[in-house]
Amino acid sequence: MFDTLKIINDTAAFNRWAGFEVTRAEKGEAELRMHWRNEMGQYSGFLHAGMVAALLDTVCGFAAATVSGRVLASHFSVNCIAPAVGQVFIASGKVVKAGRKQVFASGELYADTDGKRKLVATGNAILVPVETSEIT
Amino acid sequence: MFDTLKIINDTAAFNRWAGFEVTRAEKGEAELRMHWRNEMGQYSGFLHAGMVAALLDTVCGFAAATVSGRVLASHFSVNCIAPAVGQVFIASGKVVKAGRKQVFASGELYADTDGKRKLVATGNAILVPVETSEIT
Amino acid sequence: MFDTLKIINDTAAFNRWAGFEVTRAEKGEAELRMHWRNEMGQYSGFLHAGMVAALLDTVCGFAAATVSGRVLASHFSVNCIAPAVGQVFIASGKVVKAGRKQVFASGELYADTDGKRKLVATGNAILVPVETSEIT
Amino acid sequence: MFDTLKIINDTAAFNRWAGFEVTRAEKGEAELRMHWRNEMGQYSGFLHAGMVAALLDTVCGFAAATVSGRVLASHFSVNCIAPAVGQVFIASGKVVKAGRKQVFASGELYADTDGKRKLVATGNAILVPVETSEIT
Repeated sequence: MFDTLKIINDTAAFNRWAGFEVTRAEKGEAELRMHWRNEMGQYSGFLHAGMVAALLDTVCGFAAATVSGRVLASHFSVNCIAPAVGQVFIASGKVVKAGRKQVFASGELYADTDGKRKLVATGNAILVPVETSEIT
Repeated sequence: MFDTLKIINDTAAFNRWAGFEVTRAEKGEAELRMHWRNEMGQYSGFLHAGMVAALLDTVCGFAAATVSGRVLASHFSVNCIAPAVGQVFIASGKVVKAGRKQVFASGELYADTDGKRKLVATGNAILVPVETSEIT
Repeated sequence: MFDTLKIINDTAAFNRWAGFEVTRAEKGEAELRMHWRNEMGQYSGFLHAGMVAALLDTVCGFAAATVSGRVLASHFSVNCIAPAVGQVFIASGKVVKAGRKQVFASGELYADTDGKRKLVATGNAILVPVETSEIT
Repeated sequence: MFDTLKIINDTAAFNRWAGFEVTRAEKGEAELRMHWRNEMGQYSGFLHAGMVAALLDTVCGFAAATVSGRVLASHFSVNCIAPAVGQVFIASGKVVKAGRKQVFASGELYADTDGKRKLVATGNAILVPVETSEIT
């Protein structure tokens, strides 16, 4: 499962650009890490909301993929609860309910600065399993 | 207003990386454009959900900035309604209600291929005005 | 279509309790009305968030039913943008995209006081078509 | 805190109609219960989405009230992950982050049938503290 997610992750050009790294994968759960780079900032220098969403959506999708194979996000939402500032960002996702037509997953995004971890955003995603189960 | 949004847009490192271009700004409304590049893709080659979110969140924030000055997104949601494939992506946002504490905005994302425009995603954002009104 | 929605509406016990009335139905669109009663209030006397959600979710579902037959809501969200106070509440919904697996719809809720109409909430819903197409 | 929430709950006419009962209240957490009645059903006889939303929104608001006093919901979202069928419904909510301008809370709704409990919906809410802190 871990290896499968790593392969999917490497297949996505944006994930490679961002330096997403799959650090954990279990049945219904996944974790991603990303190192901060200046080009990821919004106008105040915080992590751009798009990057926050990218991490949360991806980790929810990866968590879903561990139980439902190939999926596509149809809906996701993000709560930005603290300024997303840190050297490393860690996103963890878990499946809330895996249905045949829809998989519900939720995620949390932490910012790590000098080993101190802070919750900066939470998210929810609805993923739709796609027919060709190429990735499991 | 147009010039102010262009300046904010140029201030954000991620927006520069992505090549966001402010193409319209009116009281309560804004429009952004972005050219597709391969490094923006997810594993199927569609525009990455994070880029979809970045465009929608940014255009909602810009629409809010035209009426409420400096804002930060506290919540946003995205519906992915069609594969985000195109040469150019156009995001338009408008303010639904500008309150003192919260601004509600909604946005639409279109993909343009050879001049044919298709709606690929819709979004909503809640923006919080921040005290220092530096940007208006 | 109008008659079909009226029949579905009468089938739902909660809709009868609340006095929901279908006032418009077209391909991809629907409108509902409800008269305020005291037992619908939250602690400040505004319309309860649950009633706001009930109206928006129902009208989105009815709009979806006009194009996709029998549906069930899997996700909905509500923005409360002004105090929901009025004598009559009017909810209108429209389909944004009707897919095979998911129908995306959006809605608006207005409060009417002495003929003056005010937008009090907006909403989005994702509806899943269910196999037995009993209602169309 | 428990007594305060009970008083607020009794103040809301809709909560009285629905028979909401506050069964737990701690710093940042709350629990509600409600007995099923036929008039709460949608067209298939499941608990109406509006009632699902009412329970989740209310329990999130109550959890927020334990830390931030009087609040009003500005946004909430609901995922319907299983048919909401049961004799008793139990909603639990907790505060994710209590800011000065916005409180983020999340909730879960369980349906209980003959003592067997099933997760039927999850939700998120953003609550805005209101100035007059009457209720704490």
